Amino acid sequence: MSPLSSSLLNPRLSFPLKPLFLFSQSSFAPRKFQIPRQFVSAKRKTFSALASEQSSATDNGGRSGGGGRSGALSPSPVVEEVQRIDVNPPKGTRDFPPEDMRLRTWLFNHFREVSRLFGFEEVDYPVLESEVLFIRKAGEEIRDQLYCFEDRGNRRVALRPELTPSLARLVIQKGKSLSLPLKWFAIGQCWRYERMTRARRREHYQWNMDILGLPEVTAEAELISSIVAFFKRIGITESDVGFKVSSRKVLQEVLRCYSVPENLFGKVCIIIDKIEKIPIDEIKRELNATGLSEEAIEELLQVLSIKSLTKLEEILGGAGEAVAELKELFSLAEKFGYSEWIQFDASVVRGLAYYTGIVFEGFDRQGKLRAICGGGRYDRLLSTFGGDDVPACGFGFGDAVIVELLKEKGLLPKLNLEVDNIVCALDYDLQGVAAEVATKLREKGQSVDLVLESKPLKWVFKRAARTNAQRLVLVGNTEWQKGMVGVKILSSGEQYEIKLDELE
Amino acid sequence: MSPLSSSLLNPRLSFPLKPLFLFSQSSFAPRKFQIPRQFVSAKRKTFSALASEQSSATDNGGRSGGGGRSGALSPSPVVEEVQRIDVNPPKGTRDFPPEDMRLRTWLFNHFREVSRLFGFEEVDYPVLESEVLFIRKAGEEIRDQLYCFEDRGNRRVALRPELTPSLARLVIQKGKSLSLPLKWFAIGQCWRYERMTRARRREHYQWNMDILGLPEVTAEAELISSIVAFFKRIGITESDVGFKVSSRKVLQEVLRCYSVPENLFGKVCIIIDKIEKIPIDEIKRELNATGLSEEAIEELLQVLSIKSLTKLEEILGGAGEAVAELKELFSLAEKFGYSEWIQFDASVVRGLAYYTGIVFEGFDRQGKLRAICGGGRYDRLLSTFGGDDVPACGFGFGDAVIVELLKEKGLLPKLNLEVDNIVCALDYDLQGVAAEVATKLREKGQSVDLVLESKPLKWVFKRAARTNAQRLVLVGNTEWQKGMVGVKILSSGEQYEIKLDELE
Repeated sequence: MSPLSSSLLNPRLSFPLKPLFLFSQSSFAPRKFQIPRQFVSAKRKTFSALASEQSSATDNGGRSGGGGRSGALSPSPVVEEVQRIDVNPPKGTRDFPPEDMRLRTWLFNHFREVSRLFGFEEVDYPVLESEVLFIRKAGEEIRDQLYCFEDRGNRRVALRPELTPSLARLVIQKGKSLSLPLKWFAIGQCWRYERMTRARRREHYQWNMDILGLPEVTAEAELISSIVAFFKRIGITESDVGFKVSSRKVLQEVLRCYSVPENLFGKVCIIIDKIEKIPIDEIKRELNATGLSEEAIEELLQVLSIKSLTKLEEILGGAGEAVAELKELFSLAEKFGYSEWIQFDASVVRGLAYYTGIVFEGFDRQGKLRAICGGGRYDRLLSTFGGDDVPACGFGFGDAVIVELLKEKGLLPKLNLEVDNIVCALDYDLQGVAAEVATKLREKGQSVDLVLESKPLKWVFKRAARTNAQRLVLVGNTEWQKGMVGVKILSSGEQYEIKLDELE
Repeated sequence: MSPLSSSLLNPRLSFPLKPLFLFSQSSFAPRKFQIPRQFVSAKRKTFSALASEQSSATDNGGRSGGGGRSGALSPSPVVEEVQRIDVNPPKGTRDFPPEDMRLRTWLFNHFREVSRLFGFEEVDYPVLESEVLFIRKAGEEIRDQLYCFEDRGNRRVALRPELTPSLARLVIQKGKSLSLPLKWFAIGQCWRYERMTRARRREHYQWNMDILGLPEVTAEAELISSIVAFFKRIGITESDVGFKVSSRKVLQEVLRCYSVPENLFGKVCIIIDKIEKIPIDEIKRELNATGLSEEAIEELLQVLSIKSLTKLEEILGGAGEAVAELKELFSLAEKFGYSEWIQFDASVVRGLAYYTGIVFEGFDRQGKLRAICGGGRYDRLLSTFGGDDVPACGFGFGDAVIVELLKEKGLLPKLNLEVDNIVCALDYDLQGVAAEVATKLREKGQSVDLVLESKPLKWVFKRAARTNAQRLVLVGNTEWQKGMVGVKILSSGEQYEIKLDELE
């Protein structure tokens, strides 16, 4: 026989809860830690309104209907020291409350849909990678901004600053099991610890599309085409944005002409990428420090100022790969139908060390924003990780600048929560029936905001307005006895009764 | 006049590339670092096949058609020391190659669709949070497994091990601007540094649904209903899984009866949650160490073994909240239509310190797997962060165990890449036209895998089979002169010519 018999226990278990409750209330939520109440709104059910409802419910012994459950907060079994936390996300990071999440989802859906239209397959990699994957020696900004640390197993790890090295790692890993060309896309969060206090965040999401296994410039043409398709879908035109296109082989041909060693190439590109960010004298000093002669530097800067492919051909000649590839890309752009979007600009080199050929970046024509997206060919990345090289190109498209641009152009979509039905019992005893109605509707694919508490109709209508419910379904005693529910179409005001089974 | 005139430069720029290329080949991909070639397949175009094609292209001076671009890898301007990286993702983490990503997307879409049907709004929080958010003093496993580090600004941060503390933080931050009850869901990656070498991973994705602002047990009933709806959608029935339901108030009432101080409650729950993982004597020792008498411990373990609500009522009496709430939940379950799925089990307490009331977990009836999902009421979490408390409940549903279960039951969906069209030019000169065709189709919402290189038809058919293309669109010279393209429906073999504009 259990020593814990009911006769023994009941008297001890059933002593009134109230004193204990009040005790725990005051010990767990001391006044000094409460959030300020200056924005109390009388119209909405807010935290403070709820809190006072709860107190009065406690005072009068709790809500008596609905199974004897008290409306009050339960006495707390969680006893923790109260520590007032910073309610903001860590510096440089974002929360996504519903309104922001709707925008993110909208954006990602367009990324995904465009990728699908182009026959790309989605992939992903860990947001936490080995640090070694991102450590390159060319002096990239990205390296100084690595969010890296040692894990508990003493491994050097980093929150990924970009997705391409992970792609390369996975492709080497999969090796011969992959059919080429592969067309992959990913949407992943990337992290950069920016030390300066600028408006830039420390994380962003990036849409990447990559084609591996294709040496032809048709790959670059296809990638730019997909970005153009994306812009068109969201209402951005060629008068809003453009692509500056060049090839690293332009630089390479110039450097080769001055017998600059190949192994300085990455470093030189990284320096040149900073041209619009730091003074030109500083650029020259840095280039000089890598060993470039003053003559070579002047020539280089001269070539970088070229904005016409014809001019480039005049200077470099028609025999090199740079001019030939660029010409082919511009010719393909015409066939793809996006000539108006692209222009040659020799100053574009991009800030990542691994690009080897054509590079491009999307820019806003008003010149107010940073690059919207960027990409290029990186045929030699895999071998830097010890793999066999595969011809490759891709782009990254962040979620931040594009939103700025959409705001700028008044193109941000209006996205609201929208539910098909709000279902409400007119009496707490009918809550179970309302649940049954909700279940039936959901099984038919209808979304239902089920009112889970006893509320006046006025409150229900307000909630319906907030959730943009199409239809109000009311479960009342009189109708339910006939197996029927009341329906109100909220846009038209039309009202009727209908058998539950007939509700579509 | 530019000193870099073409007459000066051309002779120097146009020296043959081959020697340099060969040089860079050998310096960037030394044999000892190459991935083994034991899986070379003769049928597919693989890395090695591609590599040899490239070598021969280089040997014979490169592909001559198509704009003069060499088929070879471009000479590398990226000069990095080759470091053979580990091609696996960091220990305990996953890559998502296309086949795994399709499964993840399928799963997440069901999470999202169920959440939509229940009128929940999606939210997200940073994967990197302040460490303080997750440090509770109740001895939870989660604390010892925190993926934490100090960032460059000397802040203690952690990769989130769960989503609920971030939810609480955001709700406190938003305060009075939120309309209650709020119904939010999130799908986020969570991290735990498990020190033991088990099959468990260090990251998983978790689907959370939470209702804030509702003290009524209808909230718990709604949450379980949504999980049931999810199971049904993916083919899992009540004979595969069930929910064990209890309330922490059961424990609380027993402890109170033995005058155990309230502040030990969280700790006791965490110990009890380990009952099935460590020997019972160890449990008793730990409980004893918190100050519980041996008598209390015996009583506690006795109550925890109860599997019937009637029995519980006999022992605790009908006056307490625990029994009343549980009875109401079981009554609502009937109305919602999922009585068959749930059972009372006093041993369920869940491993998180902050639960205050009803707790539940989904389990596989064969008893082979860990808990599939779990949740409960946490009415006092916000005040531990210095906010005003709000009644709250929610659940977490991981992406790992459910996939194990689906495998076990033979319910894993077959998910293939599926493109609507494969578009191919029969001649490299028609590549631009093929691009035009692809663009037209994509504008009509059709997905297109555009063949971006010159390939024999045999190769195209193989690729079409791999991508499950519905239709092959061939761009040939004869047809195109009439403004037409060739179409082959790949399922039926039906073939015809059609004007491009008429292609839907």
